[in-house]
Amino acid sequence: MKVDLGGFSTGDFDKGAGKLKIMMWYLVNALFVRASWNPLMGVKIALLKAFGAKIGKGLVIKNEVRIKSPWFLTIGDNCWLGERCWIDNLDKVSIGSNVCISQGALLLTGNHDYKLPTMPYRNAPIVIKDGVWIGANSTVCPGVTVHENAILTVGSVATKDMKANGIYQGNPAAYKRER
Amino acid sequence: MKVDLGGFSTGDFDKGAGKLKIMMWYLVNALFVRASWNPLMGVKIALLKAFGAKIGKGLVIKNEVRIKSPWFLTIGDNCWLGERCWIDNLDKVSIGSNVCISQGALLLTGNHDYKLPTMPYRNAPIVIKDGVWIGANSTVCPGVTVHENAILTVGSVATKDMKANGIYQGNPAAYKRER
Amino acid sequence: MKVDLGGFSTGDFDKGAGKLKIMMWYLVNALFVRASWNPLMGVKIALLKAFGAKIGKGLVIKNEVRIKSPWFLTIGDNCWLGERCWIDNLDKVSIGSNVCISQGALLLTGNHDYKLPTMPYRNAPIVIKDGVWIGANSTVCPGVTVHENAILTVGSVATKDMKANGIYQGNPAAYKRER
Repeated sequence: MKVDLGGFSTGDFDKGAGKLKIMMWYLVNALFVRASWNPLMGVKIALLKAFGAKIGKGLVIKNEVRIKSPWFLTIGDNCWLGERCWIDNLDKVSIGSNVCISQGALLLTGNHDYKLPTMPYRNAPIVIKDGVWIGANSTVCPGVTVHENAILTVGSVATKDMKANGIYQGNPAAYKRER
Repeated sequence: MKVDLGGFSTGDFDKGAGKLKIMMWYLVNALFVRASWNPLMGVKIALLKAFGAKIGKGLVIKNEVRIKSPWFLTIGDNCWLGERCWIDNLDKVSIGSNVCISQGALLLTGNHDYKLPTMPYRNAPIVIKDGVWIGANSTVCPGVTVHENAILTVGSVATKDMKANGIYQGNPAAYKRER
Repeated sequence: MKVDLGGFSTGDFDKGAGKLKIMMWYLVNALFVRASWNPLMGVKIALLKAFGAKIGKGLVIKNEVRIKSPWFLTIGDNCWLGERCWIDNLDKVSIGSNVCISQGALLLTGNHDYKLPTMPYRNAPIVIKDGVWIGANSTVCPGVTVHENAILTVGSVATKDMKANGIYQGNPAAYKRER
């Protein structure tokens, strides 16, 4: 196979928003939301909602949280988004209630079909259920569902679904023990 | 167990500084220390000291180094803090002399007790002894002591104490060989 | 051994550019290239070329891409540099055509000889051949050659050469299967 990225097209991929909205979010995000100078959580939450995010009560959102597409984001009640965590949601990300996403963690929805020369998108949604803890600097891969109360440890990479109450570690993350 | 982050409180956790000092550091840090435009090491070191950091002679501090609480930071002589390394010190971080913290590394002192529904803090200090090398993009977990001359390799995660002169690799980092 | 970073010198290390050029690149980079406010790919590519990068046609360069030394960078045709990827090229980095470097990935050329007390540089170039995919948040270590069409999976750390068409995973990255 000869890879040919010049032939890549986004296919039927739906960005979920029009060009103007995406451009406006880009600027608002750079200047006010992921901006390092702004510690005001209320302002960030209001702006995320204005761009389509569904957010429950009690969200704690730390500094430099990076969200690609607020219109593809749903968050329940009493969640924490840690400093510099990154919700790279080309596709939908659904987060339940009482979820902790720690500092530097990455929710990764973007993927490519590497079996094809033009590497077309193979993006997939991420679902994180109630009570989950995604550890610092860890990564959740496209299409993964993390079930209730599961824990992904520091720096680990979840490539498959995680079962309820399980503690997972490593790259790829493996089940270690019950919470 | 039903996780209930709405019931979280910081308990007897001591931030180590008053509200005004924390706010001032937040701004000074965003504008002048972790700020990407500022390459002037002398200015950064002076500001860190003004906010309570104890720093020996000969510190090399690269760009976008991120330090949560300078008042919880002690650094010996002739140390290097690499580009974008992150000292996330909710608790004390003590670094000896001749220590290299490479680019993108994370010293992580924050933790939670995941056995309890409200996930109370279980923060713990980090101690890094003389001659240690913490590799690029690696992470040192809360409560870990890294003994003299030990090395944590690129991208590894130290979850337990590392013994003197040992080279550790992986997630969790395991002892591989003598330095 | 007693580590003595105070005795470190750059030895015969060649930064590849004069002081003025390095300072100018520092500012241009902070203000316009790795700057989070700037989504204009054409501007970034023109600035990289002005500072000595050799870049083929069709480069897609996302936000906050961080390049240490454009004068040490060669990129072929139809490549992608993902959001926040980091080419930390103290030494030469050569990227072929149709290569995807995903978001948050790190190409690391800097190293130190840890057997010697003053930790002198042991930097080494990185070569990435045509059709390679370097996954999100992964790291390629100094001196590594990644051969045609190989894939480094999410969060993995390539410490040795990767053979053509191989898929590698883990820290250190191990061969898993054919692409």
